[in-house]
Amino acid sequence: MKILFVNPNTSVSVTERIAGVARAAASAGTEVVAVTGPYGVPYIATRAEAVIGGRVALELLAEHAPGCDVAVIAAFADPGLGGARELLPMPVIGMAEAAMLTSCMLGRRFSIVTFATAMEPWYRECVDTTGLSGRLASIRCVPGGFRDIATVAEEKADVLVEACHAAVTEDAADVIILGGAPLAGLAGAIADRVPVPLVDGVAAAMRQAEVLAALRPRKATAGTFRTPDAKPVTGLPPALESLFSRR
Amino acid sequence: MKILFVNPNTSVSVTERIAGVARAAASAGTEVVAVTGPYGVPYIATRAEAVIGGRVALELLAEHAPGCDVAVIAAFADPGLGGARELLPMPVIGMAEAAMLTSCMLGRRFSIVTFATAMEPWYRECVDTTGLSGRLASIRCVPGGFRDIATVAEEKADVLVEACHAAVTEDAADVIILGGAPLAGLAGAIADRVPVPLVDGVAAAMRQAEVLAALRPRKATAGTFRTPDAKPVTGLPPALESLFSRR
Amino acid sequence: MKILFVNPNTSVSVTERIAGVARAAASAGTEVVAVTGPYGVPYIATRAEAVIGGRVALELLAEHAPGCDVAVIAAFADPGLGGARELLPMPVIGMAEAAMLTSCMLGRRFSIVTFATAMEPWYRECVDTTGLSGRLASIRCVPGGFRDIATVAEEKADVLVEACHAAVTEDAADVIILGGAPLAGLAGAIADRVPVPLVDGVAAAMRQAEVLAALRPRKATAGTFRTPDAKPVTGLPPALESLFSRR
Amino acid sequence: MKILFVNPNTSVSVTERIAGVARAAASAGTEVVAVTGPYGVPYIATRAEAVIGGRVALELLAEHAPGCDVAVIAAFADPGLGGARELLPMPVIGMAEAAMLTSCMLGRRFSIVTFATAMEPWYRECVDTTGLSGRLASIRCVPGGFRDIATVAEEKADVLVEACHAAVTEDAADVIILGGAPLAGLAGAIADRVPVPLVDGVAAAMRQAEVLAALRPRKATAGTFRTPDAKPVTGLPPALESLFSRR
Amino acid sequence: MKILFVNPNTSVSVTERIAGVARAAASAGTEVVAVTGPYGVPYIATRAEAVIGGRVALELLAEHAPGCDVAVIAAFADPGLGGARELLPMPVIGMAEAAMLTSCMLGRRFSIVTFATAMEPWYRECVDTTGLSGRLASIRCVPGGFRDIATVAEEKADVLVEACHAAVTEDAADVIILGGAPLAGLAGAIADRVPVPLVDGVAAAMRQAEVLAALRPRKATAGTFRTPDAKPVTGLPPALESLFSRR
Amino acid sequence: MKILFVNPNTSVSVTERIAGVARAAASAGTEVVAVTGPYGVPYIATRAEAVIGGRVALELLAEHAPGCDVAVIAAFADPGLGGARELLPMPVIGMAEAAMLTSCMLGRRFSIVTFATAMEPWYRECVDTTGLSGRLASIRCVPGGFRDIATVAEEKADVLVEACHAAVTEDAADVIILGGAPLAGLAGAIADRVPVPLVDGVAAAMRQAEVLAALRPRKATAGTFRTPDAKPVTGLPPALESLFSRR
Repeated sequence: MKILFVNPNTSVSVTERIAGVARAAASAGTEVVAVTGPYGVPYIATRAEAVIGGRVALELLAEHAPGCDVAVIAAFADPGLGGARELLPMPVIGMAEAAMLTSCMLGRRFSIVTFATAMEPWYRECVDTTGLSGRLASIRCVPGGFRDIATVAEEKADVLVEACHAAVTEDAADVIILGGAPLAGLAGAIADRVPVPLVDGVAAAMRQAEVLAALRPRKATAGTFRTPDAKPVTGLPPALESLFSRR
Repeated sequence: MKILFVNPNTSVSVTERIAGVARAAASAGTEVVAVTGPYGVPYIATRAEAVIGGRVALELLAEHAPGCDVAVIAAFADPGLGGARELLPMPVIGMAEAAMLTSCMLGRRFSIVTFATAMEPWYRECVDTTGLSGRLASIRCVPGGFRDIATVAEEKADVLVEACHAAVTEDAADVIILGGAPLAGLAGAIADRVPVPLVDGVAAAMRQAEVLAALRPRKATAGTFRTPDAKPVTGLPPALESLFSRR
Repeated sequence: MKILFVNPNTSVSVTERIAGVARAAASAGTEVVAVTGPYGVPYIATRAEAVIGGRVALELLAEHAPGCDVAVIAAFADPGLGGARELLPMPVIGMAEAAMLTSCMLGRRFSIVTFATAMEPWYRECVDTTGLSGRLASIRCVPGGFRDIATVAEEKADVLVEACHAAVTEDAADVIILGGAPLAGLAGAIADRVPVPLVDGVAAAMRQAEVLAALRPRKATAGTFRTPDAKPVTGLPPALESLFSRR
Repeated sequence: MKILFVNPNTSVSVTERIAGVARAAASAGTEVVAVTGPYGVPYIATRAEAVIGGRVALELLAEHAPGCDVAVIAAFADPGLGGARELLPMPVIGMAEAAMLTSCMLGRRFSIVTFATAMEPWYRECVDTTGLSGRLASIRCVPGGFRDIATVAEEKADVLVEACHAAVTEDAADVIILGGAPLAGLAGAIADRVPVPLVDGVAAAMRQAEVLAALRPRKATAGTFRTPDAKPVTGLPPALESLFSRR
Repeated sequence: MKILFVNPNTSVSVTERIAGVARAAASAGTEVVAVTGPYGVPYIATRAEAVIGGRVALELLAEHAPGCDVAVIAAFADPGLGGARELLPMPVIGMAEAAMLTSCMLGRRFSIVTFATAMEPWYRECVDTTGLSGRLASIRCVPGGFRDIATVAEEKADVLVEACHAAVTEDAADVIILGGAPLAGLAGAIADRVPVPLVDGVAAAMRQAEVLAALRPRKATAGTFRTPDAKPVTGLPPALESLFSRR
Repeated sequence: MKILFVNPNTSVSVTERIAGVARAAASAGTEVVAVTGPYGVPYIATRAEAVIGGRVALELLAEHAPGCDVAVIAAFADPGLGGARELLPMPVIGMAEAAMLTSCMLGRRFSIVTFATAMEPWYRECVDTTGLSGRLASIRCVPGGFRDIATVAEEKADVLVEACHAAVTEDAADVIILGGAPLAGLAGAIADRVPVPLVDGVAAAMRQAEVLAALRPRKATAGTFRTPDAKPVTGLPPALESLFSRR
């Protein structure tokens, strides 16, 4: 079984973090491939950056997904997910989606706790898009900047634990998702400091990818998630262009 | 890894079907235990039967869950799920819940297709309870009775395929869940006759149980899914009684 | 007119409280019968306890409803209500449901104020199930334990009044429901200390039961609330078993 | 106990029908007063007519409610209800509201069946306003005009029964509300021809008014349903004007 | 192009304010007509007052709309809007509606900030009716009374600015609507003191009226917004009566 | 006043159509600039194509928006809209959004009628994203392919009129939006063949752009629609890169 993680950002350190946590979470025998965006921003934190990241995700998938069983878009707002799900022949899942769906089996309402300042309104749109706002307790972003995206998890661990406590006490969260690929791996480190289950997005996505790989669902041949009709496109990188043009 | 499937009905043939499909879907090294309700109805098809089945599920879990990593309530409306999630120390998931959450990663809207006549309104309540009505395309029940719950999957295969086509064509379903434990295993048999991905509830639950076992979430110690305070109960079977009384 | 109140808990003192408030609220000529659960917990305060209570409610109804015009499940989360509504030939209503529907005629948004610590998330599921979350202002639980379920209403009166004020001032509640059978009768005692209408669940259920008795609706013979088809059941108390088996 | 029914239309025949059905549904000892709009339309069938009817309702209430325990606005869209609930010292309920809330205790989803052509979109707004769209199965209006508003119930009985069957079979309605004051009394006549419970709006409102009269809720002194502050108004009939000006 | 603003209140000073702001916001060549309610209240602040105002709006429209291209109901809760939209041959829009729809193009979630004490619950009903509660961040009313409706905007400017800041900081509002016709013109004066876009209801309605005038939509001849069938009405002012009776 | 229309597709003929209809709908003195995507697909008809189109829209805006008062993304699913709204200093609106918001002032529920086969599920996601699903009557796509995107409006006019009639008769639509930039201008041509108001997306967007230009809202300096912090980006076209890097 071979699972592709695409990091639609340019931070190789974040990709390495993703790959490490994914491999630790994977079943024996599962191969993990993780690739980094060739251009764009070091970390997606706005809607505009997600527009860029959505296209980066499609480019990475076009080039690296062949030969993989399932692909994961490993950025929290799942940029490009719907399009990727149409275009690719294998299942594609998003890290935020996987984390939210997993958390629904661990309690009634989940909170998302993240390190990025004031992204709550945008993250809320992502939850709405996934259709899970009825299961959302709250989104909490810890204030202040950070020094290095590669180590923000460790740098912010204490304030994130505080935010988790607030989510439990004030927002009645039953489960907490640590949001954002740069926090991958933190859940394990702080689990005994938070009184409800914690969901690590990368680990959840890794295991959900295995679920889909195991179930071997067929690619739709009807409906809007069937492979789109071949279409003349221009000006895209060759691998992506051939996905659209079916040549 | 050891996963418990509780069938809150009295049909041993259905339990065997569940166990067979679960074992086929499991990872290498996963042990599957499947148990049958000691009393109740052969197949839950109404809200009233689900009230009985909810208590049966708790009894079976109290007796058989110790030593297991995750437990699955293997009846479509997930009877007793919320209570079990509070009471048991390990994760408990429902078959319907697992099927619905899995289907959300394969398209936008899912339909539930089942063999039991006219259960649509009750199944719809289950979807609402899970908070996924925004992702539901339709629920379709094929008309008419059936000869034997043990073989209803094979008996009804053709009309179920027809109902799947209607769900795709008329209701714009992107994914279809074959609802009800007695249909376990049918998805594989008819996958090439249906133009969208099919989700088998038992196989999805099996794999989702492995996800939770792998993530090893802690039991909540705060909120309404923490272990309930010890409470004097009377008149219940000993194993269940001791779960409530914490003795 | 004869109305049955089933208390799916084992506290005879709570049943007596229910019966007293129901009789005081009843029309002249209405007979009130109140019965207590033969086993289970003294007071339902969790989802797991409601699973037990749902089955207790069906048992009590099977035994005591014959000869009654309407039956009331007198515990706040209405355990077993949907099943009872299918199974019984006369109307069955829930105490929470009756309180919420009544409160909708007294303002726009209601709050539920109750004595039990931290049941807000579970109560919220009950409101969602009833389809009235759009009419909910808030659920407020006063903190701390209590000495005796029989007298918790009097013991907690002052803090409940404070919580009512907070519901009006901070949550903009137009109406307040005092939640939980053990609070039956308190509304009258504190009405002049709370600036909006108070709804007593037992009194509301008593009167709503009379509404249904007066309207004499027919039992459905179609749809999912028709009497379920006879079904072989095993291992249930005789009265309940014969309801399922139609013998 | 004295209950006021205000018919915000000019059809005395409809008022008489309302009064007759209300008296038949009332408890022994309940006095029913029914009054007719002094101006306006013979039957409210549009949003514009409901604007007129809302003011008529307030005028009738201002003049006739003193001395009554509860007042009912007896037109299906409940024109003026929110305003009346603020302004009057006693509870005011709407006929549509009472019918919908009552139907929620008889099944999961209700349909509204009515004689007026193509009012479905407007009625749907009324259901939305009441916050009960999650409990609505469908609204069905029988086509064609009618000869006389006084006897439309009998004239249309057969096609209304057909529409009820369609609501059960095609829309999965568990309960049916016969909508519109001119259909008052029809439910009893056709109950044995429809396979689910029927709710008569006037009978339901009559009994719900008794519920509120019995519960004796206090008038709010806080929140937006408290008596509004005295306000100088000009150009209204004296009784209504003094309600606003508190003189 | 000629746009009619109807102020369904009796305050001529508010009408003048509306007219001034509307003219300042209008395109070159657009004529603005503004009329005042002949009776009723000086300022609509309750549901009951809106019932009166709805009828006043219809009367003013019946008399003054002929010859105009679009009409605006210039009171925040849009009293009578649905009825006016049926009855009149030209487009009719509401000030609250226009402000909310306009704000949706300037961000994700809007807050409504207004001077009137404690109208939040009623305003929330208006947002619900418009179907935009998913876009609402909050409604904030500044406390305390005011001296003169004609100058309340200037009197309350500072506390309104504070409330705007709270809406941005605490409620994550992306856009703020200054609610209520008496605040017309304030947005321009305080724009540089509030860190998000401000929407002036009158200016937005003025421009939205021009949109509809320019698009020249046809009057519906089918559906519930077609001109209602002629109907005998009695007791209304002649202009309004002839709108209903089509004579 | 200068309004920019960006067509994120490569069809110059569609851009010309957009420009022509926009100019015809514009006020005197408004200048219209319309630009075409330099790469991508001739017409966006899937989620995947919208991912490409979103980035194209940002590139076109970065290059052409300076000097314009308002920009319009002129493709039906509004690709890139949220990101553009953050990134650009002037208001940016979407064609679908403008059409939907405008239609809300012309009736209660709108339908979207379009020429592209089977895009209903994806268009429904767009309506959900805009928060207007409560105002949606239906989405109807006429079946079959088309010869030329430049003339599809004329080619499909008759079947589109039929679909409009079905939307009115079967789905109770009060207003109809003709969806997709290639249908620009058709509304005028078929208005007298459809019994409810028709909304042309381009004309509506043109006029809504003028509304925002006239209201001159400030750019947010707080919240998630403030100009994003400068961020190092790599590999984007210079104009877009400098928008992100603020150089």
